[in-house]
Amino acid sequence: LDYQHVQVPFEITLWIMLASLAKIGFHLYNKLPSVVPESCLLIFVGLIMGGIIYGLNDKSPPVMDSDIFFLYLLPPIVLDAGYFMPSRPFFENIGTILLYAVVGTIWNVFGIGFSLYGICQVKAFHLQDVSLLHNLLFGSLIAAVDPVAVLAVFEEIHVNEKLHILVFGESLLNDAVTVVLYKLFRSFCEMPTIKSVDVFAGVGQFFVVGLGGVLVGLIFGMTAAFTTRFTKDIRVIEPLFVFLYSYLSYLTAEMFHLSGIMAIIACSMGMKRYVEANISLKSHTTVKYFMKMWSSVSDTLIFIFLGVSTIGENHEWNWPYICFTVIFCLIWRALGVLVLTFFVNRFHVNTITSKDQFIIAYGGLRGAICFSLVFLLPDFRRKKLFIAATTVVILFTVFVQGMTIRPLVDLLAVKRKRESAPTVGEQIHIRFLDHLLAGIEDISGHWGQYYWKDKLEYFNSKYLQKILLREYDQPKSSIVLLYEKLERKHAIELAEAGQLGRAPSHPSLLNNDRTVITDKKLEDTVNPDVLENIQEILARNLYRIRRTGPAYSRHTLPGETEPGEHPQEILILRHKSL
Amino acid sequence: LDYQHVQVPFEITLWIMLASLAKIGFHLYNKLPSVVPESCLLIFVGLIMGGIIYGLNDKSPPVMDSDIFFLYLLPPIVLDAGYFMPSRPFFENIGTILLYAVVGTIWNVFGIGFSLYGICQVKAFHLQDVSLLHNLLFGSLIAAVDPVAVLAVFEEIHVNEKLHILVFGESLLNDAVTVVLYKLFRSFCEMPTIKSVDVFAGVGQFFVVGLGGVLVGLIFGMTAAFTTRFTKDIRVIEPLFVFLYSYLSYLTAEMFHLSGIMAIIACSMGMKRYVEANISLKSHTTVKYFMKMWSSVSDTLIFIFLGVSTIGENHEWNWPYICFTVIFCLIWRALGVLVLTFFVNRFHVNTITSKDQFIIAYGGLRGAICFSLVFLLPDFRRKKLFIAATTVVILFTVFVQGMTIRPLVDLLAVKRKRESAPTVGEQIHIRFLDHLLAGIEDISGHWGQYYWKDKLEYFNSKYLQKILLREYDQPKSSIVLLYEKLERKHAIELAEAGQLGRAPSHPSLLNNDRTVITDKKLEDTVNPDVLENIQEILARNLYRIRRTGPAYSRHTLPGETEPGEHPQEILILRHKSL
Repeated sequence: LDYQHVQVPFEITLWIMLASLAKIGFHLYNKLPSVVPESCLLIFVGLIMGGIIYGLNDKSPPVMDSDIFFLYLLPPIVLDAGYFMPSRPFFENIGTILLYAVVGTIWNVFGIGFSLYGICQVKAFHLQDVSLLHNLLFGSLIAAVDPVAVLAVFEEIHVNEKLHILVFGESLLNDAVTVVLYKLFRSFCEMPTIKSVDVFAGVGQFFVVGLGGVLVGLIFGMTAAFTTRFTKDIRVIEPLFVFLYSYLSYLTAEMFHLSGIMAIIACSMGMKRYVEANISLKSHTTVKYFMKMWSSVSDTLIFIFLGVSTIGENHEWNWPYICFTVIFCLIWRALGVLVLTFFVNRFHVNTITSKDQFIIAYGGLRGAICFSLVFLLPDFRRKKLFIAATTVVILFTVFVQGMTIRPLVDLLAVKRKRESAPTVGEQIHIRFLDHLLAGIEDISGHWGQYYWKDKLEYFNSKYLQKILLREYDQPKSSIVLLYEKLERKHAIELAEAGQLGRAPSHPSLLNNDRTVITDKKLEDTVNPDVLENIQEILARNLYRIRRTGPAYSRHTLPGETEPGEHPQEILILRHKSL
Repeated sequence: LDYQHVQVPFEITLWIMLASLAKIGFHLYNKLPSVVPESCLLIFVGLIMGGIIYGLNDKSPPVMDSDIFFLYLLPPIVLDAGYFMPSRPFFENIGTILLYAVVGTIWNVFGIGFSLYGICQVKAFHLQDVSLLHNLLFGSLIAAVDPVAVLAVFEEIHVNEKLHILVFGESLLNDAVTVVLYKLFRSFCEMPTIKSVDVFAGVGQFFVVGLGGVLVGLIFGMTAAFTTRFTKDIRVIEPLFVFLYSYLSYLTAEMFHLSGIMAIIACSMGMKRYVEANISLKSHTTVKYFMKMWSSVSDTLIFIFLGVSTIGENHEWNWPYICFTVIFCLIWRALGVLVLTFFVNRFHVNTITSKDQFIIAYGGLRGAICFSLVFLLPDFRRKKLFIAATTVVILFTVFVQGMTIRPLVDLLAVKRKRESAPTVGEQIHIRFLDHLLAGIEDISGHWGQYYWKDKLEYFNSKYLQKILLREYDQPKSSIVLLYEKLERKHAIELAEAGQLGRAPSHPSLLNNDRTVITDKKLEDTVNPDVLENIQEILARNLYRIRRTGPAYSRHTLPGETEPGEHPQEILILRHKSL
């Protein structure tokens, strides 16, 4: 037996296996996952395992390594989140999200930090040695809402898209703020005196860390899109580039102390559109599936490790401090949401209702990021107290808030997510309104989101697509793609139901009675000249959508495209169908 | 800048990126890959990189770590090989493959070892200090044909299936022999005296290592199949189990000093059939695609590392020894193939032609396994000589043999692989002949491969499928699956060409003229009674194939199944189509 030799990969594989089997186990009983969120069950499994390890060895079980968390477990989840981010609601609410993420987080950090410092002044609690800076440092790590925990809970409760994106977007974008504040306070703790220059430098760092991360991500994303232009002959490694470039963007950002989360989100959102157009359908299925799989495993491992790490002798149980931490976390978040939403609602037509505000405040779950940050703290006397407080806050938010949020959503009748995908008609109308609003904004001289979206779309179709897409001359509108997808799905369903028969192999036979009848009826009722006119309009416009893509441009007129071969091909198609 | 923190994942990602980009680069020029095999190009890239590193640092570049190779790079390739192994030709030729792999490898080891020992006795070469045991040890590591190198070259030259499986199967199955002989000679080198008991123990180890590996693999494979029974509610982690269980089987086998390659091949071949039936279609696409991607990356990395590791000062250039190693490798392999094939051909009707024999002998490429094994040798005076000789043999076989084998295949007009997949008709006939031959073997009392195959199939349908498949009552014949796949593909093609139209959404309209006509013609020409008879036969038999699967069993008669609802459903289907 040579266990030493294979130990590392063997234990990693076993942990992943345990996580996957635990997941299967929960789903065997249908009732369990509908009452208790999976994250709670996983933490519970972790607690039991930690207890077993503790009982057998009589020493604390291994603690989740912060390096492993930040380098290996977090990126897949953030990549998945960024890649499948619904970009429309995200960019529509970007202002509100940023307000919550930046101002809200700063509010929470200072609120929790100062009020805990107040608690420390009470002599009965024996906490006088915890300085203000240490309290602020603790505040900076406990204030941040955790994307992993939020995703795990909110994916199960199906609230409406806007509410979901507000909480989830905040949890992602507060990373830059958390990183800056945490590092700032940690370095302040080690400095003898703090100059006002340092404070200003800290404020400047916000922008560097956040925007720097976005820039790194965009650079890698564009490179990824450019690389997939050349993979036509080796389809098999296409999915790899999506993972490699986004991971590289994360690592590069971390290397320069920028926000890795912002980088990977910018990278995945930036490349998605071009990569999807370049790679094959099967590669894309693989990318999507593997991303989901990977993030699901990471997620599971994080919660199990969280449970395992809770057991042990790392804690100092000063209950007043811990209880007040939980209370302050709840109060300051609720206050912050109320105040910020008041300002948001003043400038928006589509306001955030008070029910939504409650869910936003209540959905501020803490998770593994706080936990990893608290273990990364430099050693000092009260570190174990901070660890204990963090653990309790995480368990409280995940268990109590996570388990009660679903009944609360039911009770308050919060608007749910619509179950069905938007119809083609809806999509067309949404796009039409976008163009209309862009035109109105342009005329009125207001540089709003539609104006910028239109500019970006123009820049994209004029320059980016030419560089990044393999087959530039055939970009397809998303509506055409949706139609194709529906048709393909429909065809598969027919084939599986055995309804396709042999018939369609002879296209000439496919032409069934009903179409003939409708055509005839149409010809009967409509004047031939009008009909020709309609056909011409259809020929020109439908064809344009199918061929030249969605690029609405204010610099060309609809009639400008040359007719050329387009009507011819339509005629051929029509002849075939007759 | 904090490079230390992200160094490990960053460098791994960069290496993979380099490998992928190199692969893309080669394929940009269409002519290059058709002349030079990719493996040669990759080694060349590695040589250049090694040269650059050597030039800049003035010290030897890092050598490929044997642990990394055996634990991380080799398993994906072997998993891919095992999962996509064409099981029919493999099991049809299993006897010949085992003969080549076991007897052939032993023949090569002792042949090369003893004749090199003879060369060492020549005083002019200054090699008298290399003992017979060291020569045999060297023989044991240099004799084994490398699956990675064989796969890389043979996948590009498209020889016929039998020839491919003979060389490739040998390269996979000789692992057990190589492991045993290598470890045996290495422990002999360290022993003061060798007893005859040790030699017999070595012979016994063959069976333990080989069969033990297969057993470990089968256990994990069956567990994997059993696990995927329960993944219906969480499709997203299904692909994971295929990778986890096969990797665990490899690691477990390595842990007990069994053959990891045999384990992973047995695991993947064993689970494939059941896993495919249990998991969803998209999961399956992901599994297939990701396996191909992973093995392709591993493969690329191995050849690049091989090139990088070649540069440096690890070598002792004693040219007589090196040249004779290359010559003996070629001669003993050629002799071995000739002698063994002579015996094989005496017992087989479908003989191996002399052209095929030449390609088998010539295709005995050496690769990264030899290279990793030679670095794992204990330190002794002549280790650098062995490293030099191994490097030259690998480069010679990969470059000279790898680059000339394609022109030789063209020149000799070796039978190529058929391009098209077998038709449904062919498949039906093959299966029919299988059943027929199983019957003949049973009657004649000869326990040949068809007899055992039939027994295994019976055991599978009677017990294994009930335990391992989720929906046991609906197993589908492979012919039905093929038909479904073709239909699905056809439907997608139709949908993409826009030929599907709206029509098929109304199944009643689908019924076109031609089918009606042919039905009428049939009714005109055939007596109604006969027609009814035909319909009954079709109803019973077609239905049986569609529903109860391929399980031909000698213990039930075709009429035994109860008619029950079968004809009814067929009537419904028929009514629909009319």
